[in-house]
Amino acid sequence: MTAPTAPDLLALDRAAQDLLFRAARTANTFTDEPVTDAQVAAIHDLIRYGPTAYNGQPLRVLLLRSLDSRARLLPHLSSGNRAATAAAPLTAILAADVEFHRRLPELYPHRPQAREWLADRAARVEQARFNATLQIGYLIVGVRAAGLAAGPMAGFDVAGVQREFFPDGRHEVLLLLNLGHPGPATPRERLPRLDTGEVIRTLDD
Amino acid sequence: MTAPTAPDLLALDRAAQDLLFRAARTANTFTDEPVTDAQVAAIHDLIRYGPTAYNGQPLRVLLLRSLDSRARLLPHLSSGNRAATAAAPLTAILAADVEFHRRLPELYPHRPQAREWLADRAARVEQARFNATLQIGYLIVGVRAAGLAAGPMAGFDVAGVQREFFPDGRHEVLLLLNLGHPGPATPRERLPRLDTGEVIRTLDD
Repeated sequence: MTAPTAPDLLALDRAAQDLLFRAARTANTFTDEPVTDAQVAAIHDLIRYGPTAYNGQPLRVLLLRSLDSRARLLPHLSSGNRAATAAAPLTAILAADVEFHRRLPELYPHRPQAREWLADRAARVEQARFNATLQIGYLIVGVRAAGLAAGPMAGFDVAGVQREFFPDGRHEVLLLLNLGHPGPATPRERLPRLDTGEVIRTLDD
Repeated sequence: MTAPTAPDLLALDRAAQDLLFRAARTANTFTDEPVTDAQVAAIHDLIRYGPTAYNGQPLRVLLLRSLDSRARLLPHLSSGNRAATAAAPLTAILAADVEFHRRLPELYPHRPQAREWLADRAARVEQARFNATLQIGYLIVGVRAAGLAAGPMAGFDVAGVQREFFPDGRHEVLLLLNLGHPGPATPRERLPRLDTGEVIRTLDD
């Protein structure tokens, strides 16, 4: 009798493991097939259940669908990200709402004082950024759950994108994300991942 | 004919949607059933494929299994988090390795200059924190993929935990996570989630 392999120790079935993690790849090219508003809503309806501190849910998403809106983004991207973004069926700007605490009386009703705990702006910005980033992790999983590929991009002028798309000063831009069906280009070989022993240590060992 | 509901628009099957998001709940009580090292390794073997910038994978995990190691953590927790943490079969300290760039020549071999781009410590700390937080999002999904419940905790003295467990100055502690099988306590009613229209906007609309 052989020991169960890692995939067999999980409750999640193997096809879902492949869809979300093992076979999923970051996409840099996309087909022309659109990503519909209904698909985006279905992704959000799934990942909105992921946990955040104070149930604050600070992630906000601005979708750029038209050529006009995309043209406003491209000058702020590093050159290596422009072609993929111009060709993707949909690009999302992912930001944290630093005024998320205003909703806490509804979202965290058993602790109405939570809103006051976050009165200090610097502490609140840190909370907003951290929890919105967690939610981006859920979102990337959710995009894959819809059978789509995600193309996250960190190579852009954050201050420029913020000025162009969020002049209100209420949002902190965190990441850009292209969404679509992956194009026919063969992705490069998968980059190496760290072994469990390099990432996880038990204090008592 | 009726329009498909949100769950039916996803490629991920309904049971997996429930396991990872819709039926999953944050746990504050746990049964005595242990979380094995093999389960932890299986979770990591799944979520290590989640994308990070430069494939840098800065998340590091310190597991506290024994009563002795747990006793070193408890004084740093807010009072509301102590009982759950003392009783959980396993507690993880989640941190970002701010020297993650040293591994880039192996992890991102097609751009050997990436290590030099991250020579500035302040920029690197920000990258380490952001990408490790994304990985925590994947990890919470992965814990649920193993059929376990996750109990993330932000209410603790970060500087104190860092001094106690990571005196090397190389790691930034981000979050604590209890893992286990959820206890018999009925969780409170699920807290409300924001609607898609409150979170996602299309620029062109």
